[in-house]
Amino acid sequence: MHDPSSAEAELARFAADLQIGDIPGPVLDEAKRSLVNIFATALAGSREPAVEVAVRTLLPFSSRAEASLAGRSERVDAPTAAFVNAMGANVFDFDDTHEATIIHPAATVFASLFAHAETARLTGAQVLKGFVIGGEIECRIGNALTPYHYARGWHITSTCGVFGAAAGTGSLLGLSGEEMLEAFSAAAVQSSGLVEGLGTMAKSISVGGAARNGLLSALLARDGLTGPAAPLTGERGYLKVYADDPSPTALTDGLGSEWEIARNTYKPYPVGVVLNPVIDACLLLREEDGLKLEDIEAMEVTGHPLLRQRTDRAEVDTGRATQVSAQHAIAIVLLRGRAGLAEFSDEAAAETLKAGRPKLAFHDEPGRDIASIDLLVRTRDGRELKREIRAALGSARNPLSNAQLEAKLADAARLVGFARDTRRLAEAIWNIDTAEDAGEIMRLAALAS
Amino acid sequence: MHDPSSAEAELARFAADLQIGDIPGPVLDEAKRSLVNIFATALAGSREPAVEVAVRTLLPFSSRAEASLAGRSERVDAPTAAFVNAMGANVFDFDDTHEATIIHPAATVFASLFAHAETARLTGAQVLKGFVIGGEIECRIGNALTPYHYARGWHITSTCGVFGAAAGTGSLLGLSGEEMLEAFSAAAVQSSGLVEGLGTMAKSISVGGAARNGLLSALLARDGLTGPAAPLTGERGYLKVYADDPSPTALTDGLGSEWEIARNTYKPYPVGVVLNPVIDACLLLREEDGLKLEDIEAMEVTGHPLLRQRTDRAEVDTGRATQVSAQHAIAIVLLRGRAGLAEFSDEAAAETLKAGRPKLAFHDEPGRDIASIDLLVRTRDGRELKREIRAALGSARNPLSNAQLEAKLADAARLVGFARDTRRLAEAIWNIDTAEDAGEIMRLAALAS
Repeated sequence: MHDPSSAEAELARFAADLQIGDIPGPVLDEAKRSLVNIFATALAGSREPAVEVAVRTLLPFSSRAEASLAGRSERVDAPTAAFVNAMGANVFDFDDTHEATIIHPAATVFASLFAHAETARLTGAQVLKGFVIGGEIECRIGNALTPYHYARGWHITSTCGVFGAAAGTGSLLGLSGEEMLEAFSAAAVQSSGLVEGLGTMAKSISVGGAARNGLLSALLARDGLTGPAAPLTGERGYLKVYADDPSPTALTDGLGSEWEIARNTYKPYPVGVVLNPVIDACLLLREEDGLKLEDIEAMEVTGHPLLRQRTDRAEVDTGRATQVSAQHAIAIVLLRGRAGLAEFSDEAAAETLKAGRPKLAFHDEPGRDIASIDLLVRTRDGRELKREIRAALGSARNPLSNAQLEAKLADAARLVGFARDTRRLAEAIWNIDTAEDAGEIMRLAALAS
Repeated sequence: MHDPSSAEAELARFAADLQIGDIPGPVLDEAKRSLVNIFATALAGSREPAVEVAVRTLLPFSSRAEASLAGRSERVDAPTAAFVNAMGANVFDFDDTHEATIIHPAATVFASLFAHAETARLTGAQVLKGFVIGGEIECRIGNALTPYHYARGWHITSTCGVFGAAAGTGSLLGLSGEEMLEAFSAAAVQSSGLVEGLGTMAKSISVGGAARNGLLSALLARDGLTGPAAPLTGERGYLKVYADDPSPTALTDGLGSEWEIARNTYKPYPVGVVLNPVIDACLLLREEDGLKLEDIEAMEVTGHPLLRQRTDRAEVDTGRATQVSAQHAIAIVLLRGRAGLAEFSDEAAAETLKAGRPKLAFHDEPGRDIASIDLLVRTRDGRELKREIRAALGSARNPLSNAQLEAKLADAARLVGFARDTRRLAEAIWNIDTAEDAGEIMRLAALAS
């Protein structure tokens, strides 16, 4: 029934047939960096209220205790582990970012892969390959939906994350190209998530669901599930329903020679990625110009329209919501001189509400890189200070170093009081391609049960 | 954070506060008829390949063996039961239809309610009330999205079914109005399903997922999950993302005085509801005019555009796909003089492919009732036969009788070789409002484990 010349059939064959030797070394290195980063954010998020709620709800429905949860002691079945680990890894939006789509690609893929790897002994090389495949499929489907999809209000990390989890797990299962296409069908009919949920616990339900449902999509395909001939590019297929004017050619253009997953970036600050240059600028204004919060009369920022659309939130009062509030970010950075997880907590929200957040005007510049802004400060004593950021720390042109990623992992462990040494975990990830049992890496990130 | 005057807050309070005494007797009677019908289709679908695949995939991840599967002997945990029973009940699209939206409302609601009822001893009256609430919320959200949503390609039974399961289960859990609204948020971020999946196993994955995810949405809300202030009517809320030009007033217009769920209808034939009048006409043409398949030169049908959009499928070759093929339906009814489940099997598909399906032209009449068609037949010997159906059997104006519903239940049991007497099951449903343990009804529909 399938049309083997369709774009999704080609994509499915790519996911099914790729060998690790086909993946360039720098792409594999980037995948390892992405894994260090996602384990950092998975630890950081492991005790968040949304995660605690999900564990409370889902634990009674977990069967075999065979998969680990980052930063926690419970052992659960694979779908539950996929759900909870993806939630935690993304809960702060401190995970990785594929800039062209604003997808956080790793959360759903790493969670489903390691959940399955713990239940079916797999090598590190198999999991590393699955991680590259999952991220690649997820970002390419995101590219085909961009820009309409996210702009309409879809939470693209969730909607596309289910495909990444399905493709990655499908790779671990050794699905054929035909079976992989069926896994895409199962993922397509389960794709969901709303931008409206950002800043609330509900966002994490679609992220967790994407990881669990992607894992199940691959297992269903293995077990004989079949779907429509062209689930993505069909007449009423996924792309046309989830986007006006989709770009189906983006699914396969340069497939195997240009790697979307190599364009992954990692955040220095636990905020919506569009806020990174704002924080860079404020750190410089504080350190180099001695700017204090109470000096500010008003501010103006010029940036990509998403900066205004996502972060013009002067009144937010929870830690979660401050992560997408430019006004809070500016205030807390000027008050504390840093922008770690503690600066986007409920306490930090209360602190900037009390101290007063700056008056901020936004100027949209549609063609602008999201890693770039111009910031203008008018002080009460009549000065004008300007800062221009062209490539924010953590963006593709100004990436975190491996040492900074390891430090992020260690910071995250400290934040949640994780008792184990994260250097062993980092070491295991840098050497994942030679690991005999990939599940051991996940167990290094868990507490003894 | 919630706006208590929003439409979804009003809907949530309605779902939380409704007492069974507030529900008119005829509405409760219709709910019982709907339950007899859904148990019939749940039995009929209990051995379908899609169900077998899902059981194979999901059983290893089921924890406690405390909920039953219709027509089967396995006992599973509540989310798994919700998933599998909803799939089976809807797999043939032989379940109930809310004509204004083409939602099949009962599958996800009944499956989640009885799954929970078996794990937490609940009375029949509680489950009957939850069933009314679930269906009412589901159809009202569907009304608010109609017509854009389904026309774009959303499988509305799945996308809205998750809300029905959430509201119904939330009622069983005794959620407050605020908690019910949080359950709506959790459902909104998990809403999915594609028309492109119709006629394939993949469709059933979104239906099963809607039941499981709706059940989990209510449990998550009970356990403390919170979401956006206005998950449905917010700026980037569910209605605006899932529909152009939605009708938010449809959520609450006449709430508590006009019952959408009383507009539910039940199918005499296991086909897309738009095909019902076509089959009625063909049965009459065969019985009263003596028309034979081989007599036909060509046919023309005038009906609602959905008839053409959904059923102009001359070449389908599987039982599942024949359920939405007008050309097959006409051929098999003229060959066999009946339109039961056996007439939409793989064997029946092969039979009409071999015998030849009629040439059929469609004429769209947008304002037309979907239960109404005009059919014109030109015979090889030069005759013209016409049949006009104004209200197909099973439509709101020509409903199945209670006896016909019981016969449908008995037929379904026969189809799958269900060994138990369905008269006890029917009796238990007609008396559900006085049952001390609603779970007993589900157990009457299961095989001994």
